Amino acid sequence: MQALKSFNAKGVPVGSALMLGDAVVAIGHNQRFQKGSNVLHGEMDCIEQAGHEFDLSRATLFTTLSPCTMCTGAILLFRIPRVVILDSVNTTDFETSEDRLRAAGVEVVNVTHAPSIELNRRFQTDPDTRPKWTGDVGR
Amino acid sequence: MQALKSFNAKGVPVGSALMLGDAVVAIGHNQRFQKGSNVLHGEMDCIEQAGHEFDLSRATLFTTLSPCTMCTGAILLFRIPRVVILDSVNTTDFETSEDRLRAAGVEVVNVTHAPSIELNRRFQTDPDTRPKWTGDVGR
Repeated sequence: MQALKSFNAKGVPVGSALMLGDAVVAIGHNQRFQKGSNVLHGEMDCIEQAGHEFDLSRATLFTTLSPCTMCTGAILLFRIPRVVILDSVNTTDFETSEDRLRAAGVEVVNVTHAPSIELNRRFQTDPDTRPKWTGDVGR
Repeated sequence: MQALKSFNAKGVPVGSALMLGDAVVAIGHNQRFQKGSNVLHGEMDCIEQAGHEFDLSRATLFTTLSPCTMCTGAILLFRIPRVVILDSVNTTDFETSEDRLRAAGVEVVNVTHAPSIELNRRFQTDPDTRPKWTGDVGR
């Protein structure tokens, strides 16, 4: 839903959520165009929205696209122990870090979520949106 | 100056600047307490302030403390080719990434800047500010 919200706002359609136990404690989405941000990828926006209140070292992070190096670094910094990834397919244009997360002891759960895969594929390949996408991953 | 500005505002005293050639194109400092941020370390705030206008793949990033995993990931994402670090000493509480930057082809320049080293040491060890510091690095 966060990814679609960002897509409908003409932003990069990557969304994220943080859960502690059964509770969603933060949600976020890419803010590159909505806030003119460089650093607020979906995962980063979500970690930002969580504020200082929650113990992220017990949280699960959900993301609709495999984390880039920056988001991976944030996951490691805040010791987030579990990451659920809905699309590990559309990763041609950036360095993925799933192996690095696993090597650091993070549990990486890959879910094949067709709507996320299709949304990312469309945004990354459509000539109208591809420049937005490549800028988002520093290309 | 950015680090001292943050320190005087009771924030985490890490500052950063981005240069393209001889021009400073962005400055920033840690915003953990000033903006209630998790992700705006000094380097991240600086990259954020740079906006979408500049080609970071030709920039030099200056930072008053060795980059954590998150900031390192952002440096790699945006292909920043050169990082100048003013304090590589006060790194006990977080995973440094200078070797990773070098392995990725980033030029890492270590400068022994006594005022930055002293400011970081003081903030990290003073019982009044240490909890702010450990929160900043996810501890």
